[in-house]
Amino acid sequence: VILATPPSATVDILKSLDFLFNSSVTITDTTSAKSSLNKILQKFNFPENIIFSHPVAGSHLSGEENSIDDLFKGKSTILSYHDSAAPLHVNRVMSLWQELGSKVSVLDAELHDRIFAYSSHLPHVVAYALLNTLKEIEQDDLALFSGGGLGEFLRLVSSSPEMWADIFSTNGKNIALAINDLVKNLNILQNKIANDPESLQDLLSELKAFKESNY
Amino acid sequence: VILATPPSATVDILKSLDFLFNSSVTITDTTSAKSSLNKILQKFNFPENIIFSHPVAGSHLSGEENSIDDLFKGKSTILSYHDSAAPLHVNRVMSLWQELGSKVSVLDAELHDRIFAYSSHLPHVVAYALLNTLKEIEQDDLALFSGGGLGEFLRLVSSSPEMWADIFSTNGKNIALAINDLVKNLNILQNKIANDPESLQDLLSELKAFKESNY
Repeated sequence: VILATPPSATVDILKSLDFLFNSSVTITDTTSAKSSLNKILQKFNFPENIIFSHPVAGSHLSGEENSIDDLFKGKSTILSYHDSAAPLHVNRVMSLWQELGSKVSVLDAELHDRIFAYSSHLPHVVAYALLNTLKEIEQDDLALFSGGGLGEFLRLVSSSPEMWADIFSTNGKNIALAINDLVKNLNILQNKIANDPESLQDLLSELKAFKESNY
Repeated sequence: VILATPPSATVDILKSLDFLFNSSVTITDTTSAKSSLNKILQKFNFPENIIFSHPVAGSHLSGEENSIDDLFKGKSTILSYHDSAAPLHVNRVMSLWQELGSKVSVLDAELHDRIFAYSSHLPHVVAYALLNTLKEIEQDDLALFSGGGLGEFLRLVSSSPEMWADIFSTNGKNIALAINDLVKNLNILQNKIANDPESLQDLLSELKAFKESNY
């Protein structure tokens, strides 16, 4: 059973599948927030046949008409499962994603949610906040005055609002911490811009080097 | 004379070109901040042969080895000039960019700098702040856990640190206001995520619609 639904719907469906818990059927999902799912499993003492999946793939488009062959090829998929998970079920889910060409990693559910708050959810929050800031400027054709990198980034805002409102709420506490860290770093830059051009250039150089060896 | 130098160097070179002011030679530049240049011209009563240019083109790469044919084709170029500018010089600079395939707009220098603080400089600040936030997470292979849109956006960080430190400092006051507005919008999202999932989804939908009709 693969639950390909938004986080909050997955929570509800998972509850309703309790008659399959600890059976020979393997259950997995595709959501990008795991701690809320884990809370349900805890009540059932972590059934051995539930292995969470998070394929990091897709575009801002949704619906069957936008399906893509080889969507998962070369992309990451993260598995999360409890110590009590049975190797049979772990291997079955791992094979599924590997056969689709995905690079599989394993992360604990809590760590998964903390990492994705920064690596994926925060960039989405930023794209929305940045676009809201640009929207407030009363200037026609503002896009004329932006470079190409911005347009690519703002494509994140074209994703499903229903899905992202759901992801943000489901992982709200971790995302709030990530937003606080970003605001701290915005203030650091703002202060260096105003007061310390030399250390500003040092920081930008350091970040360029980090970018080039990591992204 | 075309000054293709960073803002602060352009300020210095422009001063040293005072022997050409109000001559038949046309002077232009390519920098992305104009108010600091305008301050110099004010001391000379705005010579009629100086027309500022800002071509919105280029990549994160610099140096002659990265030059591109047709770099300006289909891209925007903004001209800024004082009322006292002579039509001969305005037309000459406008023709230059149009012959290179650029779409030419005209903006007052102060307005140019306020707009670019939001449309271009703020997205660069955000890319640096976001990367600094991700850098602080002690997690190897964090890029594995990010979607493709982030990588595109972070290419902004690969631009020349020297040039961007210079642009940030030259347009610092406008950029500080833009950062304040962004932080306000991050806090709005943070509050809606924590307290108001319905109005969160409404805002995301509104921003998706704005994105699709503007970017």
